[in-house]
Amino acid sequence: MSDPVVPVAIGPDGANTVLLEKAVVEGGAVVGAREEAKGLIWVGGPNDFPAELPASVEWVQLPAAGVEDWFAAGVVERFPHIRFTSAAGAFAASVAEHALTLLLAGVRYLPEHLRADRWRQQDFFPHVGSLRGKTVTIVGAGGIGRALIPMLTPLGAHVIAVNRSGRPVTGHGIPDTVETVSADQLGKVWSRTDHVVVAAPATAATHHLIGADALSRLKPSSWVINVARGPLIDTDALVEALRRGAIGGAGLDVTDPEPLPDRHPLWSLPNAIVTPHDSNPPQLRLAAFADHVAENVRRFVAGEELLAPIDPARGY
Amino acid sequence: MSDPVVPVAIGPDGANTVLLEKAVVEGGAVVGAREEAKGLIWVGGPNDFPAELPASVEWVQLPAAGVEDWFAAGVVERFPHIRFTSAAGAFAASVAEHALTLLLAGVRYLPEHLRADRWRQQDFFPHVGSLRGKTVTIVGAGGIGRALIPMLTPLGAHVIAVNRSGRPVTGHGIPDTVETVSADQLGKVWSRTDHVVVAAPATAATHHLIGADALSRLKPSSWVINVARGPLIDTDALVEALRRGAIGGAGLDVTDPEPLPDRHPLWSLPNAIVTPHDSNPPQLRLAAFADHVAENVRRFVAGEELLAPIDPARGY
Repeated sequence: MSDPVVPVAIGPDGANTVLLEKAVVEGGAVVGAREEAKGLIWVGGPNDFPAELPASVEWVQLPAAGVEDWFAAGVVERFPHIRFTSAAGAFAASVAEHALTLLLAGVRYLPEHLRADRWRQQDFFPHVGSLRGKTVTIVGAGGIGRALIPMLTPLGAHVIAVNRSGRPVTGHGIPDTVETVSADQLGKVWSRTDHVVVAAPATAATHHLIGADALSRLKPSSWVINVARGPLIDTDALVEALRRGAIGGAGLDVTDPEPLPDRHPLWSLPNAIVTPHDSNPPQLRLAAFADHVAENVRRFVAGEELLAPIDPARGY
Repeated sequence: MSDPVVPVAIGPDGANTVLLEKAVVEGGAVVGAREEAKGLIWVGGPNDFPAELPASVEWVQLPAAGVEDWFAAGVVERFPHIRFTSAAGAFAASVAEHALTLLLAGVRYLPEHLRADRWRQQDFFPHVGSLRGKTVTIVGAGGIGRALIPMLTPLGAHVIAVNRSGRPVTGHGIPDTVETVSADQLGKVWSRTDHVVVAAPATAATHHLIGADALSRLKPSSWVINVARGPLIDTDALVEALRRGAIGGAGLDVTDPEPLPDRHPLWSLPNAIVTPHDSNPPQLRLAAFADHVAENVRRFVAGEELLAPIDPARGY
């Protein structure tokens, strides 16, 4: 049995909280004053965060996916008896939708279509592709990769998800037909890959993960999409592959260097689509955060495990 | 219990039938000579079609979705004891994928991104949208509309399907949350619609279905996608709405007139994407037909109802 009235506060005062108030109510709680609240949804930064909280507060929802700043400001350590959750995963869907857009635009030859100023049906016919029956390798099976899988499989694409462990990727909307491969087997995957989506964190191990070698093993029709971090792709090797037509094209929401400098070849290559790291723009973030809050409020009220719990010992 | 060996022939002789042979085997039959075949997969035109067929043939699969020409050539009437099936529905997935591509490209502001030659993140942020939480009205719930629904719902879009009867649209991958509205109620749907996909047949009743009135009731962020037939949209009213920014944009695989003449305003409007009726290009058709054949062979062998049966009395 859940408490019939669970007050959840939203702060700091003065923030635009209409969407979040709706989310709290949607989650089954009521919006209350901080003094009596069991939960606190915080939309400010770490430096605005209260020095003290009422004893009633059991849970705090932070607005960021990465919470290094909150640890640096000592917020989490200050309240050892309170559970903190981050917004990790909340913004993954928008980035996954962006990746799908870039991939479909490439496969369907949209850049050339948009440059046309006359009806070039016969020219374009041979270049219009489809994801049906194609294999898309998603490097990184975190929030973005897992959000992308259920967007790709209804199009008839076969998905290979690459993660560190190789343990099968599962989750909501992820069909059994998805193959999981461990990162150390990545080299064996290229020959079966039609398109690649890079969605892994930037670490020493993933630096230039897509370089001359991987690019040489893809197909002249392959699109390479990056919605993670620029340095996962060797930009010079990519430009070279795009120039030679060794791959079909690249759709990049992130670049290396970033911002991409004026007159960089990626701006003018006809088979490159560059978006300026805007796959998760500010006006979409609040709505996505509100969805995350509604779900966490629902779980909090029901006494279920919360999404994106922060582990004070690990620092994330 | 199904017959362990069902011979299916492919004709005419000399056609490139590798994919279709694979499809016959995948469907659980064997490729056989016409003289002993129970099924015949025909990839030629109506004028090549044999004047006589062996008595063993019970079923003929034609390669076209629309079979007016086959009736005109007298093919179907010539064999009253044989079941004919068309390729209706086989090509819907490619057209639906094209519609999704145009819609996502519009919502994610891809045309303007592709024109950029420098990093314009702050300019673009407010214009990058998402289908999450948006309502997409699909006018026409035939093969294309029904194929599109399972591609949209994993993106978090709400779908309103419009058909003649208003009878709930159901089928593989179509969730219960999809709303069905009858065509005569279409006027009441616009105020709840974020984006429109036109996928209905061209008839007197659908001529200029999207005209000044509908366009005036959509939102300044709405995209209008047409993958059906040009005359379903009033082109002049559309151009006017695009010029004024009354809607977000239009993605058109079909136009009126078609082909779209040189120097037509749709070629230069920044919020119009025109593809020259290439959503179902020839090289994708054979693969899609092969998938259709594999499924129909499977059904034929299993004694199940076939896809796209032709009714000799109705003429389609």
